[in-house]
Amino acid sequence: MPNEEEKFVEDIVDQDDNFSMWYNQVVRKAELADYAPVRGCMIIRPYGYAIWENLQRLLDARFKETDVQNAYFPLLIPQSFLQKEADHIEGFAPEVAWVTRGGGEELEEPLAIRPTSETIVGHSFAKWIQSYRDLPMLLNQWNNVMRWEKRTTLFLRTSEFLWQEGHTAHRTLDEAEERTRMMLEVYRSFAEEDAAIPVIAGRKSENEKFAGAQRTYSIEAMMGDGKALQSGTSHNLGTNFAKSFDIQFLDADGQRKYCATTSWGMSTRMIGGLIMVHGDKSGLIIPPRLAPYQVVIVPIWRKEKEREAVDELVTRVEKMLKGKVRVKVDRSDNTPGWKYNEWEMRGVPVRMEIGPRDVQNNSVMLVRRDNRAKEPVALDALETRLPALLEELQQALYQRALAFRESNTYSTESYDEFKRIIAEKRGFVRVKWAEDSAAELAIKEETKATLRVIPLEQPEGGVQGKCIYTGKPATCEAIFARAY
Amino acid sequence: MPNEEEKFVEDIVDQDDNFSMWYNQVVRKAELADYAPVRGCMIIRPYGYAIWENLQRLLDARFKETDVQNAYFPLLIPQSFLQKEADHIEGFAPEVAWVTRGGGEELEEPLAIRPTSETIVGHSFAKWIQSYRDLPMLLNQWNNVMRWEKRTTLFLRTSEFLWQEGHTAHRTLDEAEERTRMMLEVYRSFAEEDAAIPVIAGRKSENEKFAGAQRTYSIEAMMGDGKALQSGTSHNLGTNFAKSFDIQFLDADGQRKYCATTSWGMSTRMIGGLIMVHGDKSGLIIPPRLAPYQVVIVPIWRKEKEREAVDELVTRVEKMLKGKVRVKVDRSDNTPGWKYNEWEMRGVPVRMEIGPRDVQNNSVMLVRRDNRAKEPVALDALETRLPALLEELQQALYQRALAFRESNTYSTESYDEFKRIIAEKRGFVRVKWAEDSAAELAIKEETKATLRVIPLEQPEGGVQGKCIYTGKPATCEAIFARAY
Repeated sequence: MPNEEEKFVEDIVDQDDNFSMWYNQVVRKAELADYAPVRGCMIIRPYGYAIWENLQRLLDARFKETDVQNAYFPLLIPQSFLQKEADHIEGFAPEVAWVTRGGGEELEEPLAIRPTSETIVGHSFAKWIQSYRDLPMLLNQWNNVMRWEKRTTLFLRTSEFLWQEGHTAHRTLDEAEERTRMMLEVYRSFAEEDAAIPVIAGRKSENEKFAGAQRTYSIEAMMGDGKALQSGTSHNLGTNFAKSFDIQFLDADGQRKYCATTSWGMSTRMIGGLIMVHGDKSGLIIPPRLAPYQVVIVPIWRKEKEREAVDELVTRVEKMLKGKVRVKVDRSDNTPGWKYNEWEMRGVPVRMEIGPRDVQNNSVMLVRRDNRAKEPVALDALETRLPALLEELQQALYQRALAFRESNTYSTESYDEFKRIIAEKRGFVRVKWAEDSAAELAIKEETKATLRVIPLEQPEGGVQGKCIYTGKPATCEAIFARAY
Repeated sequence: MPNEEEKFVEDIVDQDDNFSMWYNQVVRKAELADYAPVRGCMIIRPYGYAIWENLQRLLDARFKETDVQNAYFPLLIPQSFLQKEADHIEGFAPEVAWVTRGGGEELEEPLAIRPTSETIVGHSFAKWIQSYRDLPMLLNQWNNVMRWEKRTTLFLRTSEFLWQEGHTAHRTLDEAEERTRMMLEVYRSFAEEDAAIPVIAGRKSENEKFAGAQRTYSIEAMMGDGKALQSGTSHNLGTNFAKSFDIQFLDADGQRKYCATTSWGMSTRMIGGLIMVHGDKSGLIIPPRLAPYQVVIVPIWRKEKEREAVDELVTRVEKMLKGKVRVKVDRSDNTPGWKYNEWEMRGVPVRMEIGPRDVQNNSVMLVRRDNRAKEPVALDALETRLPALLEELQQALYQRALAFRESNTYSTESYDEFKRIIAEKRGFVRVKWAEDSAAELAIKEETKATLRVIPLEQPEGGVQGKCIYTGKPATCEAIFARAY
């Protein structure tokens, strides 16, 4: 009885007309998240949180394969800690929320709600690490952090967000660099294999690196409007934090030495990324590996006498798939058409229709979310066909996003053309570059495009030619784009 | 080469001599947790956090079986929200930490770091719930909360702690009461089956109920020193929060009505509980279902030429058990004896010794942590015998704790004897009771014992006789004890 339902599937705005409005409508209508009464904070609703739980499970398993262990460090950080690493406090000070009262009293020292935990982890590493035998120390935590933001968008930029932050300590700079790159590769493979999002892995420029890092790497993805989204970062902190927090160890040669440390993080921002990469005009498309429901079953009958047999088959299929595929059965009173729209909008990868004819044929009808392709499947083939179809869809989403990125990536040696591309088209521009911070800031000022990343993959034999802006001999190729 | 190791297995104080010192030593030496530089906060180290991860996985699965979904609500709560429910703010105000500055500016309204989330969840329920079709709404979140504490103990009472808090909204008071009791039962079964901790499930007195609740239930466990630990609570909030936050729905009869709501929580405190219930003079004993490592393999050889064959068998066994049992192989340079002490102290349920004789016999030696019973097991029986042994140990820990509780539970009808028991013995006292708040406070004042719980299990046919304190006709039996 859809007329009595208060919620309904409205038309959503076209992506091409207003991408950010499309994004906000989809996030709200699909019940992924909601604004909180505290400015800039969000409430992650069950359907959005279930995506986060799947991300956590898959990414956490990848961390553990590299011997990382989880731990938990406190929410509050003394002001004096934040100030120990000069670049770090300069980078984060404007964004910090401060606790100044507790238990009915003014605090002697204000406490920061962690914007990130390098300082408090560094303090602990200094206590725990004595000898080279204690190294490497490989920790991660899943937690909330807070960065006071002026302009916020659900998932993409909120004052409080959820993430994981990994922190490691090593015997040598080389080993820290190796771990930094290893975790970048973990992020790349998670993004491409589990989130079906093609990414460019590379190094950040000096301007864009983490406050306190020696070197920052990131993975950058192209959203459906051609803008870039930084989707995971991995920092080689060198001995910066080790020196600020006195993280030393006794080496095998009897010398006391500073550790080299790393940190790396991925956040709920990634959920924003997958919405903007895979969604279409009908709403979300969630890649099967991260989808809360991989399949939604819609029972169909016209006459009441058909209902019993349909219900029976639905229940049988539900039981058959339990523990193998994440299934939702929509038994609500809405019409089948209403249900199709709703679950398409919410991005369930595969719809399964079960009606009287399916009862007769001992089969079900599968419909892919991405291209609406229909496929009748006999019951006794379902347990093998359905997982295979989900995997096909997972790959198709990746390939579609990759093709989109390729067709929206430009290459030019002329700065005038560069400016035209940024102003008139959407996407990435790959240019020859001489790593000049002033030039980078000038380009940002003139075009709003930023240097997203210096890709790990560079032309074989090195880069020939001149920097697109300064005309100096180029040292690398770099990707510029407007970004979230 | 143990002499070069800086950490070592010291003797720990006897439980009977100083239980709280024993507790603190074990928590620190086993590397479960550490004090943070912010007063009253803790760092949960990987070995402690792995227990929490196991607890989360098992408890979360129990929640989901009852159709609860996870979500995430914000860390910060406006002051005005906390003030809407009068009892609630009165209960929590003294413990709140306040954020007063953010992004470089003084905030117009101070923001509380959540001590619990009934208020912000209530605000959201009011937005999301329109009709009876939206009910019940069954949410849970795994998160951090903060309650400014004066005296703190790792896991048992810290200013910041981790927990889960469930929040549900219902159509009727009866349904809310049913859910409150259902979640109490989830906690009971988790505590007894997964944590091997026998608990008494029951109702809290008016004095001890949650600030804002109509009725609070809890599970109470007896620690190794006879004191009680409240280990999980479930609150029927009636329409208190619904009225404060205007959570109404349109019922099938066309009337707008207030929802009835519930909340329920279990925290990292539970880790303190399992330490204090199962530990012995050698340190921790972690019940197998929650143990980070269920088995530790200690390779043994005297002569270098024995080493290769032992290593080979160890690796074979490790591979054989992978994915079936959580195994740690201690390949460090420490002596076997050192390793035995260390892993006994850290509470690994079963030790597996593998030496040259085991290589010859194609077998391994299993040693139980609780009673040191040794058992040689042939390799081809290991995959079935080891899980069975772990389950035997799980049951034995429960039975031992139950026997301890039974032998330290007293029953008396004389208040003088009651006082003697509380002063001279350890444990619980079960008495006849007339539910009188003033009498309860007087007993607390005179003996430091508090009314822990009015057990769900009451004498058949009702309670006969007089209240132990007031002499009024008893209405129930109640458990008193000193408590954490």
